[in-house]
Amino acid sequence: MKDAKVRLYVDHPLGEGQSVPLERDQAHYLFGVMRLGVGSAVSVFNGQDGEWRAEVSQAGKRGGELMCIAQTKPLQIPPDLWLLFAPIKKARTDFIVEKATEMGAARIIPVQTDFTNYERIRQDRLQAHAVEAAEQCGGTYVPEVTDLQKLGRLLDDWPSDRNLMFCDEAEVGSAKTLGQATGDKWAILIGPEGGFSPAERDRLKAHSQTYVVALGPRILRADTAAVAAMTIWQQALGDW
Amino acid sequence: MKDAKVRLYVDHPLGEGQSVPLERDQAHYLFGVMRLGVGSAVSVFNGQDGEWRAEVSQAGKRGGELMCIAQTKPLQIPPDLWLLFAPIKKARTDFIVEKATEMGAARIIPVQTDFTNYERIRQDRLQAHAVEAAEQCGGTYVPEVTDLQKLGRLLDDWPSDRNLMFCDEAEVGSAKTLGQATGDKWAILIGPEGGFSPAERDRLKAHSQTYVVALGPRILRADTAAVAAMTIWQQALGDW
Repeated sequence: MKDAKVRLYVDHPLGEGQSVPLERDQAHYLFGVMRLGVGSAVSVFNGQDGEWRAEVSQAGKRGGELMCIAQTKPLQIPPDLWLLFAPIKKARTDFIVEKATEMGAARIIPVQTDFTNYERIRQDRLQAHAVEAAEQCGGTYVPEVTDLQKLGRLLDDWPSDRNLMFCDEAEVGSAKTLGQATGDKWAILIGPEGGFSPAERDRLKAHSQTYVVALGPRILRADTAAVAAMTIWQQALGDW
Repeated sequence: MKDAKVRLYVDHPLGEGQSVPLERDQAHYLFGVMRLGVGSAVSVFNGQDGEWRAEVSQAGKRGGELMCIAQTKPLQIPPDLWLLFAPIKKARTDFIVEKATEMGAARIIPVQTDFTNYERIRQDRLQAHAVEAAEQCGGTYVPEVTDLQKLGRLLDDWPSDRNLMFCDEAEVGSAKTLGQATGDKWAILIGPEGGFSPAERDRLKAHSQTYVVALGPRILRADTAAVAAMTIWQQALGDW
């Protein structure tokens, strides 16, 4: 069997000899777009059982079936890192979800801040972006994208065992550095394009688990800031 | 005078009392789109004389004039860092130029590699993206975007005083770390989506000024990799 050219997320258990039914969209993609047929190799993962080499056992216009052959990668769960960001224009919000998945976030939380214009997000569409990014980046884990949450309420109920890395352009650095942190549960918070409100900034800085990190002398767009912040975190504390 | 809401790159000398003629596009943007008029504040920079607060002195449909009032920022030249990348799909190539500008590259060089599909780029369009990104990020410097160059030829003539940070997914790290490097001239090379050819990889690794840096266990898209690599460099050796 040749190497699989297609990497597919499936919402189905995977294991040796396990058959995996394909939905209409998946069948269209594999057989219509990618021109695979019975016997073709496909690489599959479900976010729980690692990555498996599978083979097409049935191919139809409206569905089909894969057969799992052998595991090619164990499940690699990323570090327990949440990415909190304020939604921005559609294309850039999609990018942030894609990049957070590639960079190894475990959970992606869109937050509503005092200066956020967006009242609604399409959670299902963002979750689909995370799936697609996981297919592309070779990961075996798909981060959950939650629905939009109010930052204030999130901070009210902030778990006592989770540190918060707060990226603030107005700050030159924190008294506490990342290296001094204890605990392995983290969240990174990226501000909205208009920045945080003074009330939010005060509240974030007063929070005992907050670590303020500066991202250089230029103003970064939110999607750039997300990647830069996650790079700093992954290098210091994560799986890089 | 109120704070300027618009930040504009102009290709004209700036200084106290200096008048700056506006081109048709700029006049359309300032007076048509942003609804400014005579007396409105505009923030201007030209990549050489820092940032100046200016005031609209003439406003017309096809042109206009600004008058420089006072310098608001000195020229901040970024570190001597080149970003070399293999052009990819149009939107992502635009993003790489934008992000490289925000992250503080001094020069952006699109390179043709053995596995690059693109034969041509629109240098003028990419340069315009760098200008726009500089306007947005508050920088006073606009990196030059060069025309497409062959990677092989670039390596043939590689300057002996410039280090090369080579980001290779296939590598787990280099014998030489960034911290051991001497000299402040650098280039970061980001590979194409299909990776480097074995011949390119051998040549890059044999190069005496090469530092290999790994970017984590997941495969990053080229635009994500560019931001992550520049973050690592800026933190270790740059102006962050």
